[in-house]
Amino acid sequence: MRAHEIVEEYPVVGLDDDALQAARLLVERRLPGLIVTDAQGQPHTVLPGSQVLRFVIPTYVQEDPSLARVFDERHADRLCETLIGRSVREVLPKKRIELPVVDADSTAVEIAAVMARMHSPVVAVVEGARLLGAVTVSRLLGLLIAGVEKST
Amino acid sequence: MRAHEIVEEYPVVGLDDDALQAARLLVERRLPGLIVTDAQGQPHTVLPGSQVLRFVIPTYVQEDPSLARVFDERHADRLCETLIGRSVREVLPKKRIELPVVDADSTAVEIAAVMARMHSPVVAVVEGARLLGAVTVSRLLGLLIAGVEKST
Repeated sequence: MRAHEIVEEYPVVGLDDDALQAARLLVERRLPGLIVTDAQGQPHTVLPGSQVLRFVIPTYVQEDPSLARVFDERHADRLCETLIGRSVREVLPKKRIELPVVDADSTAVEIAAVMARMHSPVVAVVEGARLLGAVTVSRLLGLLIAGVEKST
Repeated sequence: MRAHEIVEEYPVVGLDDDALQAARLLVERRLPGLIVTDAQGQPHTVLPGSQVLRFVIPTYVQEDPSLARVFDERHADRLCETLIGRSVREVLPKKRIELPVVDADSTAVEIAAVMARMHSPVVAVVEGARLLGAVTVSRLLGLLIAGVEKST
């Protein structure tokens, strides 16, 4: 069971793509995060939905979450206006989140080891310079569990 | 927009539940993690799929991921046998992962602030001693984006 055999399509956005569109993609696909590629189409980082939220909440709330209580909820509907005209690059956290990447010929155990070590629910799969897609933790666990059901 | 108005059903397992069944639930619902409750039904922690993988891979690979390469892939099908007869408690990482919990009357901005700060794609919602369910990052972002689309 090699990465190229089990890889699936996974939503990808570029650093210069529209941040609001990226947020819509997170919502539509009900994902915790998107893969972000650089200008060369190489996997660069992951954009977690939680960090999109960080970007849209007021600075004083980011600095002291207890102040969320004093935020006037009538303005909640307008929070995501902050994303209008922004690029994915602008929304990313300053400290780059490391996206696990494996080669197309990696084995199931290699992918599992990377996910476990990096506490990541997704790994990008590349073949040379080309991004093939990703393997999610539910995909990999599903295949491994099917193996047990077959052998017992 | 209060937590009790936007909360959704979310898969929950108990500490003494069967670990293989919990893994199946992760796979069926295509989730990165499950909410784990204690004997009193209170949210205790989160079980990420990546940590189920950590549990099933051989110890020498956990300690040195580069050794994954020498693992005989013919045995990959049997990895999840390790979960048979195990409880969720046994599979959890030793260092407890903090699950964000909010009250039923928390506002959207309070939930967003908690998710952003804890880098969590999900928060549990409680009303007194009762677990109502959870709010996911895609759910919350979706509601906030709908607000922008309404107001522009």
